[in-house]
Amino acid sequence: MLKYPDAQVISLGIGDTTEPIPEVITSAMAKRSYALSTVEGYSGYGAEQGEKQLRAAIAETYYENLGIEEDDIFVSDGAKSDISRFQVLFGSKVTMAVQDPSYPAYVDSSVILGQTGQFQKDVEKYGNIEYMKCTPENGFFPDLSAVRRTDIIFFCSPNNPTGYAASREQLTRLVEFAKENGSIIVYDSAYAMYVSDDNPRSIFEIPGAKEVSMEVSSFSKYAGFTGVRLGWTAIPKELLYSDGFPVAKDFNRIVCTCFNGASNIAQAGGLACVSPEGIKAMHEVVGFYKENTDIIVETFNSLGFKVYGGKNAPYVWIHFPGQSSWDVFSEILEKTHVVTTPGSGFGPGGEGFIRVSAFGHRENVLEACRRFKQLYK
Amino acid sequence: MLKYPDAQVISLGIGDTTEPIPEVITSAMAKRSYALSTVEGYSGYGAEQGEKQLRAAIAETYYENLGIEEDDIFVSDGAKSDISRFQVLFGSKVTMAVQDPSYPAYVDSSVILGQTGQFQKDVEKYGNIEYMKCTPENGFFPDLSAVRRTDIIFFCSPNNPTGYAASREQLTRLVEFAKENGSIIVYDSAYAMYVSDDNPRSIFEIPGAKEVSMEVSSFSKYAGFTGVRLGWTAIPKELLYSDGFPVAKDFNRIVCTCFNGASNIAQAGGLACVSPEGIKAMHEVVGFYKENTDIIVETFNSLGFKVYGGKNAPYVWIHFPGQSSWDVFSEILEKTHVVTTPGSGFGPGGEGFIRVSAFGHRENVLEACRRFKQLYK
Repeated sequence: MLKYPDAQVISLGIGDTTEPIPEVITSAMAKRSYALSTVEGYSGYGAEQGEKQLRAAIAETYYENLGIEEDDIFVSDGAKSDISRFQVLFGSKVTMAVQDPSYPAYVDSSVILGQTGQFQKDVEKYGNIEYMKCTPENGFFPDLSAVRRTDIIFFCSPNNPTGYAASREQLTRLVEFAKENGSIIVYDSAYAMYVSDDNPRSIFEIPGAKEVSMEVSSFSKYAGFTGVRLGWTAIPKELLYSDGFPVAKDFNRIVCTCFNGASNIAQAGGLACVSPEGIKAMHEVVGFYKENTDIIVETFNSLGFKVYGGKNAPYVWIHFPGQSSWDVFSEILEKTHVVTTPGSGFGPGGEGFIRVSAFGHRENVLEACRRFKQLYK
Repeated sequence: MLKYPDAQVISLGIGDTTEPIPEVITSAMAKRSYALSTVEGYSGYGAEQGEKQLRAAIAETYYENLGIEEDDIFVSDGAKSDISRFQVLFGSKVTMAVQDPSYPAYVDSSVILGQTGQFQKDVEKYGNIEYMKCTPENGFFPDLSAVRRTDIIFFCSPNNPTGYAASREQLTRLVEFAKENGSIIVYDSAYAMYVSDDNPRSIFEIPGAKEVSMEVSSFSKYAGFTGVRLGWTAIPKELLYSDGFPVAKDFNRIVCTCFNGASNIAQAGGLACVSPEGIKAMHEVVGFYKENTDIIVETFNSLGFKVYGGKNAPYVWIHFPGQSSWDVFSEILEKTHVVTTPGSGFGPGGEGFIRVSAFGHRENVLEACRRFKQLYK
């Protein structure tokens, strides 16, 4: 901006939603706001775990026939906050594995809790974290035979940043791996509504997953709630520590002590999200961003790049073999004034890639693609 | 409820607000909700630390002339959440002191982080926590000469549950004590707007406090935001670790990694709270609860009890010398169907007391007081 003060910078960088929230949802929030000024409509502290009706509706909408019930759902102010609450839940003495590359909050919160040991500059890794490499060569699913046993496995599918959604068969292997090792899978399904093939939307679609998994998700990328802040975590009753104590009971303690529930107004919005009209509206939002994704994928395909992701997630993962992702990022920014994200920011396995986010106004995505074509023609 | 299914139970137990939120505030939240459905009014991720305008307005409203600036304010989803983020900030190896009695979240979150050692049943205390006894005998301010040095001192004033607000002279001694010991004071001023005399509303009114203190506060008890969820923490630039590193910089890292900002709609409400009309409206809410407090204080005074608090806080702290606070609680519940809070729930120093909350509809407070008079006449 200093160098080119007149530049029209377009950000396809961080995954921030850009499109208005459907009115069926905002009008429910406005209505709840107004009601708080009335004697009948006022409410103070709600249940820390979330409003009963919303918990039930989330269970029904996202986990129908999967055996997840109302009281397994903990409503949150977003997945990021919950991920840190998981770290507080597990404490500083656990070991953990992450997909490499993956959403940085898993590693960052792990560092803060003191689980990771020191950063090793030569390999760009923390000593105590197991990095499960996900590359085009292994179809973006880790070779589990080469993965060290850890207490916790963070697994994001569809994955941020690669956009890859694991298949039923792959997730079955992951669940078996966790069972053999006595590990807990923390499954991040924040992009599940972007899945367009028949890959699982939830880890709980896998038989036996409930004994080894919990799942975190969010309305951020479905309804444009990145600023409204609302998400949830599902912890099945079947998920037990090795001494038989339910993980959900422990998490309930964390939620009641370290959190006081999501905003009642945001929860009213959440309830509208999972109404029939809201679900339809969310699919339209998701559909819009998926059209953006298609435009970006086609652009880079037409330019001869190896392009990954996009199909089941609003992220496109583009390979620049042998190049530094920061160099590629800088060149794109310098020459096209489009902000992308260097892949190495998601872990050492992201080196040589950039992530292009499909969250943007249509005219900005089209203009960015015109500039990409100009640069790489 | 099982025993007396027809009983009209009145809760003056947990400090949950009951009165509607002033319309000047809810209409701002409704307006922001609707705006999120428009291209111009939509916003996604905000700054994790809160919206610039709100941070500035909080600094100006609550810390005018105290040297606390916009960028010292971290907007939160409430004091309880921030207290746990402080524990993550400080880690599991610090020692801490609490007023005894005090709001349980300090000790509970400390237990979860692993700072406290085991619970010692004989004294009803955790081994590693320093309990600073606050009783009628010491005017509810601890005898600092008998307090062991700790890294962190949680100090809530006006205090929940005793309702006691520390004086300027007492807080000056507390600041000196922290300086001598290299301790950080975490000052909880969630009830500051209830102060009706000239005792300090903020620790930063004490000269030198900025070098040893941070302050957490909330809109919950001012605007009825217990369900809306909005608070803040102020960390002065002068507050440094012994190695010279600013505490605020560390907390900024926690806020950015473990939190994603308070709901934008709640923040719109916060901005309305600290507008001239909003401040007036909040004072009316506070004034209403203070009238409730007067009614409760007068009732117990007229019955010959030793009554504390009430003047600077919405809590009345009533002495039942030599009795178990759980027995008193049970007797009141059984015979009057009014829920109070047994003092021992706030620490061993609360034994022999009950807390009566002034948060309630007027008719319920009056009816509860009629029943108290019936019971103790």
